[in-house]
Amino acid sequence: MTGDLSTMADYIPQKTDKFTFGLWTVGNPGADPFGGPVRVPVSPPERVRKLAELGAYGVNLHDNDLVPFGASAPERDAIIKEFQAALDDSGLVVPMATTNLFTHPVFKDGAFTSNDAGVRAFARQKVMASMDLGAELGAKTYVFWGGREGVEVEASKDPVTATKRFRDALDFLAEYSLSQGYNFQFALEAKPNEPRGDLFLPTVGAMLGFIATLSRPDLFGVNPEFAHETMAGLSFYHAVAQALEAGKLFHIDLNGQKPGRFDQDLRFGQEDYKQNFFLVKLLEDSGYAGPKHFDAHPLRTSDPDDVWEFARGCMRSYLILKEKAARFNADPEIQAIWQQLNAPDQTLDPLLSAKFTPENAQALRGMSFDADALAAKPLPYEKLDQLVFDLLLGVR
Amino acid sequence: MTGDLSTMADYIPQKTDKFTFGLWTVGNPGADPFGGPVRVPVSPPERVRKLAELGAYGVNLHDNDLVPFGASAPERDAIIKEFQAALDDSGLVVPMATTNLFTHPVFKDGAFTSNDAGVRAFARQKVMASMDLGAELGAKTYVFWGGREGVEVEASKDPVTATKRFRDALDFLAEYSLSQGYNFQFALEAKPNEPRGDLFLPTVGAMLGFIATLSRPDLFGVNPEFAHETMAGLSFYHAVAQALEAGKLFHIDLNGQKPGRFDQDLRFGQEDYKQNFFLVKLLEDSGYAGPKHFDAHPLRTSDPDDVWEFARGCMRSYLILKEKAARFNADPEIQAIWQQLNAPDQTLDPLLSAKFTPENAQALRGMSFDADALAAKPLPYEKLDQLVFDLLLGVR
Amino acid sequence: MTGDLSTMADYIPQKTDKFTFGLWTVGNPGADPFGGPVRVPVSPPERVRKLAELGAYGVNLHDNDLVPFGASAPERDAIIKEFQAALDDSGLVVPMATTNLFTHPVFKDGAFTSNDAGVRAFARQKVMASMDLGAELGAKTYVFWGGREGVEVEASKDPVTATKRFRDALDFLAEYSLSQGYNFQFALEAKPNEPRGDLFLPTVGAMLGFIATLSRPDLFGVNPEFAHETMAGLSFYHAVAQALEAGKLFHIDLNGQKPGRFDQDLRFGQEDYKQNFFLVKLLEDSGYAGPKHFDAHPLRTSDPDDVWEFARGCMRSYLILKEKAARFNADPEIQAIWQQLNAPDQTLDPLLSAKFTPENAQALRGMSFDADALAAKPLPYEKLDQLVFDLLLGVR
Amino acid sequence: MTGDLSTMADYIPQKTDKFTFGLWTVGNPGADPFGGPVRVPVSPPERVRKLAELGAYGVNLHDNDLVPFGASAPERDAIIKEFQAALDDSGLVVPMATTNLFTHPVFKDGAFTSNDAGVRAFARQKVMASMDLGAELGAKTYVFWGGREGVEVEASKDPVTATKRFRDALDFLAEYSLSQGYNFQFALEAKPNEPRGDLFLPTVGAMLGFIATLSRPDLFGVNPEFAHETMAGLSFYHAVAQALEAGKLFHIDLNGQKPGRFDQDLRFGQEDYKQNFFLVKLLEDSGYAGPKHFDAHPLRTSDPDDVWEFARGCMRSYLILKEKAARFNADPEIQAIWQQLNAPDQTLDPLLSAKFTPENAQALRGMSFDADALAAKPLPYEKLDQLVFDLLLGVR
Repeated sequence: MTGDLSTMADYIPQKTDKFTFGLWTVGNPGADPFGGPVRVPVSPPERVRKLAELGAYGVNLHDNDLVPFGASAPERDAIIKEFQAALDDSGLVVPMATTNLFTHPVFKDGAFTSNDAGVRAFARQKVMASMDLGAELGAKTYVFWGGREGVEVEASKDPVTATKRFRDALDFLAEYSLSQGYNFQFALEAKPNEPRGDLFLPTVGAMLGFIATLSRPDLFGVNPEFAHETMAGLSFYHAVAQALEAGKLFHIDLNGQKPGRFDQDLRFGQEDYKQNFFLVKLLEDSGYAGPKHFDAHPLRTSDPDDVWEFARGCMRSYLILKEKAARFNADPEIQAIWQQLNAPDQTLDPLLSAKFTPENAQALRGMSFDADALAAKPLPYEKLDQLVFDLLLGVR
Repeated sequence: MTGDLSTMADYIPQKTDKFTFGLWTVGNPGADPFGGPVRVPVSPPERVRKLAELGAYGVNLHDNDLVPFGASAPERDAIIKEFQAALDDSGLVVPMATTNLFTHPVFKDGAFTSNDAGVRAFARQKVMASMDLGAELGAKTYVFWGGREGVEVEASKDPVTATKRFRDALDFLAEYSLSQGYNFQFALEAKPNEPRGDLFLPTVGAMLGFIATLSRPDLFGVNPEFAHETMAGLSFYHAVAQALEAGKLFHIDLNGQKPGRFDQDLRFGQEDYKQNFFLVKLLEDSGYAGPKHFDAHPLRTSDPDDVWEFARGCMRSYLILKEKAARFNADPEIQAIWQQLNAPDQTLDPLLSAKFTPENAQALRGMSFDADALAAKPLPYEKLDQLVFDLLLGVR
Repeated sequence: MTGDLSTMADYIPQKTDKFTFGLWTVGNPGADPFGGPVRVPVSPPERVRKLAELGAYGVNLHDNDLVPFGASAPERDAIIKEFQAALDDSGLVVPMATTNLFTHPVFKDGAFTSNDAGVRAFARQKVMASMDLGAELGAKTYVFWGGREGVEVEASKDPVTATKRFRDALDFLAEYSLSQGYNFQFALEAKPNEPRGDLFLPTVGAMLGFIATLSRPDLFGVNPEFAHETMAGLSFYHAVAQALEAGKLFHIDLNGQKPGRFDQDLRFGQEDYKQNFFLVKLLEDSGYAGPKHFDAHPLRTSDPDDVWEFARGCMRSYLILKEKAARFNADPEIQAIWQQLNAPDQTLDPLLSAKFTPENAQALRGMSFDADALAAKPLPYEKLDQLVFDLLLGVR
Repeated sequence: MTGDLSTMADYIPQKTDKFTFGLWTVGNPGADPFGGPVRVPVSPPERVRKLAELGAYGVNLHDNDLVPFGASAPERDAIIKEFQAALDDSGLVVPMATTNLFTHPVFKDGAFTSNDAGVRAFARQKVMASMDLGAELGAKTYVFWGGREGVEVEASKDPVTATKRFRDALDFLAEYSLSQGYNFQFALEAKPNEPRGDLFLPTVGAMLGFIATLSRPDLFGVNPEFAHETMAGLSFYHAVAQALEAGKLFHIDLNGQKPGRFDQDLRFGQEDYKQNFFLVKLLEDSGYAGPKHFDAHPLRTSDPDDVWEFARGCMRSYLILKEKAARFNADPEIQAIWQQLNAPDQTLDPLLSAKFTPENAQALRGMSFDADALAAKPLPYEKLDQLVFDLLLGVR
């Protein structure tokens, strides 16, 4: 396949690619902690139309991305009607919805884990209303990101109690979804810190552990985000693999981030090409069928045109990496190394995947292994990784 | 209590404090990646005697901390006999055992997740033998730390397959424990990286998520380690709280570490006094009854005397922080703020902890909240954190 | 001194402590990337009065903390007059001034390093006007923090050219200061990232290196900030020591921060008590005579009262640590270890501090050392660090 | 140039590429903190022959890479003779030498900054002898890496005194070089931590700042290392640019590393392709004429064959990235954006690069800028970064 770049002009997104964007992503006005907005985003219906034009499959939203906090019922209905019309015109869907539990000052110390029962109750109200909105727009997946569920001051919140409160809220809301016939699948999104000093349940793994303690674990999975896991210097590729293997990859947030710093939410593909390649390969090889959601935002330097270059780039990078994954799977030299490393063992394979019996334990203990000989088998990983470098950089 | 420091001379460890040390901790010879050993440790029986003298409750071990790799059966038995005698003399117990699956070159690409079936089989053999040893010494808890279960080269190991192989091994070994009547409780220990580029199941949370997928999740809990969670910049205090709340804190590794760097395994208390304080307070307030295990090592600069100062310091720091926790719980000003923050709400508390019914959902939705008024309630966290500073520094 | 806590009630700031606050610190309205303002700060003159009441020595400011961007000359003059009156009433001084080169969208890609000559020229204009303001208010030190001098997209700015542009601006502005008779000493403030992906000259060290390339290095020093150096996981204590030793500690920004995450700007003392202790000890022992400037902000959860608890806490923590430093210097056991470690050597000390001559090189080469014997000298660092723990926690 | 991959087979290193390897790199036996050696490296002369065969230009060494610690003079001479013969046969040179001041226990608390005058004196002796060796082998550059010049226990070493001691040693040794006619250029290598908790002068910037305080700053430059700067999450590309711009890039250590973790010393190119690309582009565009030194080591999993794949890969990756840099410079679309961003300004450019005069300050202040208009100029950085992605991945 070396050198055959004939199809390279063709990285055009299709609906079947299931690329989705948050309304808040292409609508980001460019503020940051050291400066205010620099762009006036186009309206949500305009975003829908533009994203459809670029080849996206859907848009996702927090309640307040569409309906302002405190809007009256008629205002809300009018907004939704106009938005639904844009969806209908463009053919875009809303596969995922979520709740903004972080912007209004009422949530400054968290929502579900606030010490204040009034805040906790208000948060549940808001989520129920937001679930109604999501269901109305056809969303199948409901995401929870506990953006302010944490502390800067350890003494301010008991983490054991906070965990119980978080669980009470999710158990309740899952039942609400069932009682209304919404039948959402819920996806929990972790983040280690920012805007709080430390957020509870800070990693994909922590969420998977927490799900096991819920009343209806079957309804809950995770929404891993590249930036969030990478902030803690963890391998996003491995986190997604753990979730996939456990049947818990219900949604995914793709973007870019450098480790060990503030939440950057860069364009998908902007950072760590190799990590992104293995991530895309995993999603493609595993048959993950959910949306590929871009939870990123254009740079503060971007003008309106560059905002759409940003959106285009997220999808294009994914498709380029998808093609690389196909090349990897078809590369004879790479595959030969892989086969060598994973050569089947007629005797041991069945024994190692069998359930325990005293007999097979005995059989295993009775075998004789030469540890030094096993240690001496070649593991040509430098060579393999260099082949990946060459393949990704287009020189094989 | 301000100024009442009359009991301060009394930080003397007692058996009831359940302080334990790894044989490998006070036996660490001081090598690092840039230099070889600097100390000749005393023999394991001598370590036992010295630790007993200092007030420890027990010692923990990897198989090869006591019995060298490849020792003959008679050698093994002689070593164990001498070691057991030292335990008997000193009154120390061995509450926890584990397997060295990382030193010998055979494990250079992992044990349970190696691509090589021979390595995987050999690892299981070694663990079974090590479990026999642990049981013989009276251990109740068996720890798994997958020290080389990971990669530097993503292409070298499929993380989905690796997870399945990890599970197969643990499921098998749990049954082995039952079949032999050992009835170990298993504690899984996570680490994000080092010695591998990225280790699988890198955090306490990831282990909790993984446990939920095992055949016998009830037999498995976690062994959180301060240094490992801190390497990823995560709150160890929160990780332990999640494990505790889930009933999964089966063991704990206490030491010291700065975030975002190599594994330091410093003396307990050496880094982040405040984090350590809240950790000790959590363990004490929760009634955690397991051993407090120090998995640390003396500095490379330490001479033999300083090794024992190190051991003494780990326990002393814990006891000082334990006293601080009692003072925190008895401090009227701190407690008054806590009560104010957590004032019970007769109406909302029952509703929020109740199971979902359409009726209480309706009740909740029908309530009216003034978000701005809720947002305006004072949260005196700067004041509270300063009181913690004052208390910890002994000026209140 | 153990147990002698008689003076502990007396951590009352005095003018001689030279504690200063940025106008923007106690004036921070509590916005962050995920939520808007939560507080309406009192007016600058009110901040001055309140800080004076709490014992502060001075306030520092960016031009736009006081005079809004684009204010007319009469507006500016009226504002300054009212502010100066508050200073006069309260006895506070303005020892340091700086320029806001980051809020307005014109600076979205930097100021001095922007590719756009118009932006670079406008930035210089703004700094000259801001220097006029600073001089008018009596400031002696002028700080430069290049808050947006960096990139997210490496291709967008040549770092070699950017460095030259940065130098051109500083050389020019230093001459402007001289020509106007302002005679500022300039203090350069580094930060590794945020709001930009990577900022140029990201550490105290990088600034020291850059200063050596300026036309008038004598006029320039550094303004190290605890949070900024800590974001990169570097030892702030060591960074300040390097600057001090080089005669370049012209100013200092004190606050709190956890490593490897977003810029937290927490209350001084909030994080890493031990690091803060050694920092305070260094400042006190070295006779640093400049202001101790708090560049922190109250938590978003703080209400107006808690804002002042925040300010009070910054100063109180410093004074508590200062007392600890005095105790450290007076502690016989600690000092005995220090003396042992630093025992003078009559023969070697003069030789090692002498200038090179062929003769002393020859003398040195002719000496015979027993490396193993040197290696065997005790270094009781575990013991020493435990004494520090005990001293800081008030139990010795 | 899109698709023109005709020269792709040709990434064959030439002497003119000036690729060098440390003797210790391909000679690394594969030990790490959790396991011992896994390989028996070939002898230094064999390494020389093999590296020559692969196209390297030179090898670099610490004294003890070649001559064991404590070797007698005849042993030393015999070893050097054999090594020199291998150099002569193969045509390889030794452009750089350095001293091992970290392996022997005598250096466990540092060398130049040890509190022990005996250790400091012994270290100087060792360096003088090692400089003699380096000169004998023809080295032109002498590197100082203060591998243990730091602390874990802040109380153990005064950082101000440590800095003075470091300076005294370097000033002395620089004069020794001159007095012997060696005329080395000295390159200081920074590292933030490991094996010590915190190393003094932890970054390239800190070294640049320190150099400015030496007696002969002209003789000193830096030896930036990719892994070391990246451990602290800093941009290596920017650090090298600062050094280059200051005329201080005397040497460079190329390898691979993920941020915020232990020192990995991976194959050059293994991590962060984009960062490596801009680094190579900078070195090539700037006309840097020094050696490109690989200070990396093969993975612990590598067998002897894979060791040489590692070495081959370091050089190949550099050459691939060098070709990409040429393509970047020739890419019309990329260059058009660059021209647009850096359009010359006839009025402002001269003014901004001119020295200060009251007249040009006046001219500048008198100009009128429309900040909003300047802010509105397009900065198509998302587009530009996507072009870089496409170019690096070989799809343009």
